[in-house]
Amino acid sequence: MILDGKSVSIKVLELVRDKVSTLPKLPHLVVILIGDDPASKIYVKNKQIAAQKVGIKSTIINLPDSISEEILLNKIKEYNEDSDITGILVQLPLPVHIDKNKVVTAISPKKDVDGFTPENVGRLAIGLEPYFYPATPQGIIMLLDEYKIPIEGADAVVIGRSNIVGKPMAQMLLKRNATVTVCHSYTKNLESKIKTADIVISAVGNKIVRCKMDKKNSVIVDVGIFKDSNGRLTGDVDFDLVSSSAGYISPVPGGVGPMTIASLMYNASKVYE
Amino acid sequence: MILDGKSVSIKVLELVRDKVSTLPKLPHLVVILIGDDPASKIYVKNKQIAAQKVGIKSTIINLPDSISEEILLNKIKEYNEDSDITGILVQLPLPVHIDKNKVVTAISPKKDVDGFTPENVGRLAIGLEPYFYPATPQGIIMLLDEYKIPIEGADAVVIGRSNIVGKPMAQMLLKRNATVTVCHSYTKNLESKIKTADIVISAVGNKIVRCKMDKKNSVIVDVGIFKDSNGRLTGDVDFDLVSSSAGYISPVPGGVGPMTIASLMYNASKVYE
Repeated sequence: MILDGKSVSIKVLELVRDKVSTLPKLPHLVVILIGDDPASKIYVKNKQIAAQKVGIKSTIINLPDSISEEILLNKIKEYNEDSDITGILVQLPLPVHIDKNKVVTAISPKKDVDGFTPENVGRLAIGLEPYFYPATPQGIIMLLDEYKIPIEGADAVVIGRSNIVGKPMAQMLLKRNATVTVCHSYTKNLESKIKTADIVISAVGNKIVRCKMDKKNSVIVDVGIFKDSNGRLTGDVDFDLVSSSAGYISPVPGGVGPMTIASLMYNASKVYE
Repeated sequence: MILDGKSVSIKVLELVRDKVSTLPKLPHLVVILIGDDPASKIYVKNKQIAAQKVGIKSTIINLPDSISEEILLNKIKEYNEDSDITGILVQLPLPVHIDKNKVVTAISPKKDVDGFTPENVGRLAIGLEPYFYPATPQGIIMLLDEYKIPIEGADAVVIGRSNIVGKPMAQMLLKRNATVTVCHSYTKNLESKIKTADIVISAVGNKIVRCKMDKKNSVIVDVGIFKDSNGRLTGDVDFDLVSSSAGYISPVPGGVGPMTIASLMYNASKVYE
């Protein structure tokens, strides 16, 4: 069975649009884009289009590659203090002369729609409600819930330990009472860990999940997205091989990608005073 | 082989004492104790004795059970702002009318010697250096390192997911490139997860680890400590059964307990301006 992120994301966006239309205050998302990396430009554009769809005001702040860290931090401070702005997002990656951690840490936790600040990450880790959950893992949980996939008690394997996907995904699955194993480049016997899992979430960026699954109800979520040698968009999972033995599988494209955008808009619709 | 926390903790305390004697500013630890719970009193007393041993100034602030949350939060604010005080520790548990999360969150991250504030937890989770690591998992890492136990690439099973031990332990093992599985009350087939692990860290509070280990070099760390039906102090691990099949095992008492105190003193010796 296909985990159809495309169609579920449309439902989520509709719910967000309905919610936004009843809010006393219009959410306003500021997206900071530094330089002119073509991929970053596309991501930012897609976020703006999604925001328009759900009725959220968005402003793209395009700053030159040459901007100093200090000026960028001051900009963020200004947006933190501007009560008209309810969400701040800095498109990654940043130029090498800018310390990503300093920038992320500078965003007010109550406007941190990406959920990347230490305060929000820490709140998630200690079981307090964060102001925002990171968009990709939150979108994956929404997708699993839509298909009524049981998470409690499941053996979940998360491959990859980035701050954006792997680590918050592990925290969110643990919060839902899964038994979570975090795998990465140092992991031994990865295939045997994958095969025996109930839920596999792979966020690596190469074709790493390519085995038959032991459990016919197992669930495979593919977060990877990259171009193969023929220039076609593909994911971490060998779809044909794995799908024949698994219960549920998310395609690439059309799986986690649209859920991430919808989940980000869900975040952007949250207004903290 | 016994992981002798008692003797390793003495070495750590000596190193801390040497370090403290060279510091330009004397560390000053404030321990807030609310009410007169006998166990809490003993823990606080032990911390004070350890502080004395290493030359760290400590002050116990004993507040009545009836204290309001507001007054407690104001006290913490006062200690945050007092430049003479370098570490603040609130002995848990707190009376039920006081919100533990509010209290922990109120401590300045730079004085949070327990490493429990969202900022420190979040910094650990995103790979930034926290100002302080939680004492028990930090003490366990010190113990493993003393015995030169390889962590990188090891399959580690952490049983229990408290904010004090299980969750930060998982983060610290992951940071050291172990493959980490977090198990808890909803975990299925716990025994098979324990048996096949390279490192097992159990922090539950009942006799849950009682199987033969598959790997003869496996490492068992017992964080549990409670009284058995005969009134004797014991831990999570069936020592006789497990030790015959494992490579290393920490005893209770004399294992993790003394390492936790030594690790806390290591934290208390850190002075941030």
